[in-house]
Amino acid sequence: MKLSGGVEWALHCCVVLSQAESPVPTARLAELHGVSKTYLAKHLQSLARAGLVHPTEGRDGGYVLTRAPEAITVLDVVQAVDGTEPAFRCTEIRRQGVLAAPPEQCRSACGIAKVMAGAEQAWRASLSGVTIADLGATIDLAGLKHILATPTT
Amino acid sequence: MKLSGGVEWALHCCVVLSQAESPVPTARLAELHGVSKTYLAKHLQSLARAGLVHPTEGRDGGYVLTRAPEAITVLDVVQAVDGTEPAFRCTEIRRQGVLAAPPEQCRSACGIAKVMAGAEQAWRASLSGVTIADLGATIDLAGLKHILATPTT
Ligand code: FES
Ligand code: FES
Repeated sequence: MKLSGGVEWALHCCVVLSQAESPVPTARLAELHGVSKTYLAKHLQSLARAGLVHPTEGRDGGYVLTRAPEAITVLDVVQAVDGTEPAFRCTEIRRQGVLAAPPEQCRSACGIAKVMAGAEQAWRASLSGVTIADLGATIDLAGLKHILATPTT
Repeated sequence: MKLSGGVEWALHCCVVLSQAESPVPTARLAELHGVSKTYLAKHLQSLARAGLVHPTEGRDGGYVLTRAPEAITVLDVVQAVDGTEPAFRCTEIRRQGVLAAPPEQCRSACGIAKVMAGAEQAWRASLSGVTIADLGATIDLAGLKHILATPTT
């Protein structure tokens, strides 16, 4: 099982944005994290498409969170970047081969698919119980506010 | 997030093996599930490497579970096929860029990595709470014992 590598960047960016008092340009977010602007731009666009961040125009253009960090869960960010498709995808193999179950036995999900879906539900519940505000409180943000207040290089 | 497609086959095969009274040849497992022998062989080898199934030699050669289905969890099978690597892999981006955290602040995992690991722990706990015996009880196995008792075509 593998999550998109962009999840780590996206979560760190959201924590930074939660501390900013004005829009943060992509260049600044890239510099803060020591990553290329192009790479980060892609993930910021995913966050924007999911309605979590909003690009602002003009000389001070950059990104802002669209709502309070208390109202954005880790799951929101993970799914914005990694998608909402389940990790386990049942291909209905129970309907194949000499043991094929008749359609009337397949009205509800296969017992195996149910167990796999239950585990993903537990994963999602865990991630939706933590917000960007909670993450901000666990991460050492010393220096961040100061850097955010100085002009982009 | 995506799990290997082999997980569905491997779980269904383990349920079949849990119902068998003698070794089940790969050809029979393939026929039961309507899938190619070569495809299934690969996943059966992963299960064997993880010590969940055991290949038997000779004319009646096939696979058997190495222990009681009550003692094999869904997590055992999933990890045998999909590996044990975490889905979220922290690349320590907190140590990069102008905000780089000093090493003494990085002795314990980043707060973001901890939250992601906690969610995967919930996923694993959910899957390790269900055994192959439990799955066998939820799946309609009518006909299976009869088919298993007749010679391979
Ligand atoms: S048919 Fe897909 S998990 Fe059983
Ligand atoms: S440094 Fe990897 S999750 Fe924060």
